[in-house]
Amino acid sequence: MDHSITKEGPYLRNFDEEKTRESINGALALRVQIEKIIDQIWQEGFDSIFFMGIGGTWASALQVEVYMRGRSSLPAYVDNAAEFLTTGNKKFTENSVLIYSSVSGNTKEMVELVDKVKGMGARVFAFIDTPGSLLTNEEKQDHLVVYPMNEQLKFYMTANYLMYKNGEFPEYERYNQEMETYLAEALITVEKQSDAWGYERAKKSVEFFRAHPDYPHYFIGCGNLYGAAYSYGMCYWEEQMWIRTKSISAGEFFHGMMEIIVADTPVTLFIGEDEQRPLAERVARFLPKVCENYVIIDTKDFELKGISEQFRGSISHLVIRAVNARVDTYMELLLDHPLSTRRYYRQFEY
Amino acid sequence: MDHSITKEGPYLRNFDEEKTRESINGALALRVQIEKIIDQIWQEGFDSIFFMGIGGTWASALQVEVYMRGRSSLPAYVDNAAEFLTTGNKKFTENSVLIYSSVSGNTKEMVELVDKVKGMGARVFAFIDTPGSLLTNEEKQDHLVVYPMNEQLKFYMTANYLMYKNGEFPEYERYNQEMETYLAEALITVEKQSDAWGYERAKKSVEFFRAHPDYPHYFIGCGNLYGAAYSYGMCYWEEQMWIRTKSISAGEFFHGMMEIIVADTPVTLFIGEDEQRPLAERVARFLPKVCENYVIIDTKDFELKGISEQFRGSISHLVIRAVNARVDTYMELLLDHPLSTRRYYRQFEY
Repeated sequence: MDHSITKEGPYLRNFDEEKTRESINGALALRVQIEKIIDQIWQEGFDSIFFMGIGGTWASALQVEVYMRGRSSLPAYVDNAAEFLTTGNKKFTENSVLIYSSVSGNTKEMVELVDKVKGMGARVFAFIDTPGSLLTNEEKQDHLVVYPMNEQLKFYMTANYLMYKNGEFPEYERYNQEMETYLAEALITVEKQSDAWGYERAKKSVEFFRAHPDYPHYFIGCGNLYGAAYSYGMCYWEEQMWIRTKSISAGEFFHGMMEIIVADTPVTLFIGEDEQRPLAERVARFLPKVCENYVIIDTKDFELKGISEQFRGSISHLVIRAVNARVDTYMELLLDHPLSTRRYYRQFEY
Repeated sequence: MDHSITKEGPYLRNFDEEKTRESINGALALRVQIEKIIDQIWQEGFDSIFFMGIGGTWASALQVEVYMRGRSSLPAYVDNAAEFLTTGNKKFTENSVLIYSSVSGNTKEMVELVDKVKGMGARVFAFIDTPGSLLTNEEKQDHLVVYPMNEQLKFYMTANYLMYKNGEFPEYERYNQEMETYLAEALITVEKQSDAWGYERAKKSVEFFRAHPDYPHYFIGCGNLYGAAYSYGMCYWEEQMWIRTKSISAGEFFHGMMEIIVADTPVTLFIGEDEQRPLAERVARFLPKVCENYVIIDTKDFELKGISEQFRGSISHLVIRAVNARVDTYMELLLDHPLSTRRYYRQFEY
């Protein structure tokens, strides 16, 4: 993968460096607010903490759960809003805390979820992008942070402080110092370095799609990149571009899905730097043996200046997101398909 | 869906009624053995119980987890073997119990998993299909049940007795009596009633596949039918038939994937009778609005003689499995593709 910037193709389309910097640094500055909320929850006590969501926000919840899974003995869980509304969860009680994020602040399942949880007498800690939306109402939450975008960062900041309080994150101060000093610049650099590549990638993907409109594009990831593969395939390519995809975790890939990979199958493998990296590396060894149409995006190829080796894995999903943002903007251009158009979602009753 | 049996097409191909009856009843008869093992584990105590697997056995673990999730406050969890081997899980300690199932008894990830868990000093309760396989060795497990097939039944029997011991399943005796008297006959009847339909379904699916070899076939399910949709798509159609699929849970369907459903998209919706049924019913209301190539398999269409209303949901995945078995056998015939052939799995190193 060549990250050099060329003038071939559109140049940094839809990229506002200053706005990106402000957005990320603004999110990181929520830390004081998040810590205060967690301090109060901690003091009151809890028997479980649930990150829940639906669609893309569920994928973010999966990411924070896998981040904590090997690090924390806290009773932290992930659940899906639609499933919780039907199956319920005996581990969630009136002494539990729901943490969630919503962009619109009025997603059907999330409103019902909040009503159910409040009805149980449990606490709700909400991250909402849209000021004044239904879910920002006082009776819908106990703790509210209103700030646009950066959902994954908000969840990880919450997880980090929880683990710090639980004695599981002694490097907390140094971690935050690094992120607050270097993260925005690192991610901006990733976007800049991926721009020309993103254009080429989009061009090839659109060409393939035009020639094979029903052939699914495969996304493979693991660790915090499983949520990335899942939501990128479903919430970006399927929902926004109407291109078929299938996402699979790198470990599961070897137990069925690999059999339908042939020479022309379009595959994107995300390789990150968290503990599950070896699972993705195994896929990287396999692909060249059977496929000629795969692409690997490896977060290791990016410098991420100022971020210590040991912390790089915790932002792999943000790095991949920055690369994908460059692909998406050119997909939109080349498909001539505004990413905000929906065929069905919120278009009629079902 | 017409369940009447016709002589059109092959009749009950690969179906040995007596063998099926023996297989199911033999599995149900493992109950004494399972109860004895759980009694010992219970007496020794545990801080968590993990159902783990990889591929199809992970899907079965997902099914038993969602079954217990709304019913039991026991510290019962699901994890994926490949993920546990890399990320680990702080909720799994030396006082934990791993419960798993393996057909071959030598799957790479499962052998590594067992070695890791035994190395931690934790206990292992293994269901193995193949006598004399590596994982049946004495040092690889603390509790062993060797019996072929019926993995889901074995897991549910384990869950049922755990919940019974925890005071969460007062109907345990009646439940078992019903299953032991009626389950085998009910499932045999489902297979018989689905045979002609399965042949027609296979014929249409193979025709579609021949005309559109790269168009994915979609499987949608929820509750214990999410694991069914996941493993049926991946372990049967992809792995055994080399037909592309995507599986999605019914709740998630509305958050991205629905946008790529158009008139000719082949969709199979599984509707079961556990608590998540309303999520699948919502998909059933949506599909006719946008798609002309969908099929619904609803477990409610089957009598399941002798099984009480309240217990039907707990076997929805077995009912769907019986229907799918009828489809698969004719897929094999019409594709002229032995389901045991693999392109890559265990064919070379990767």
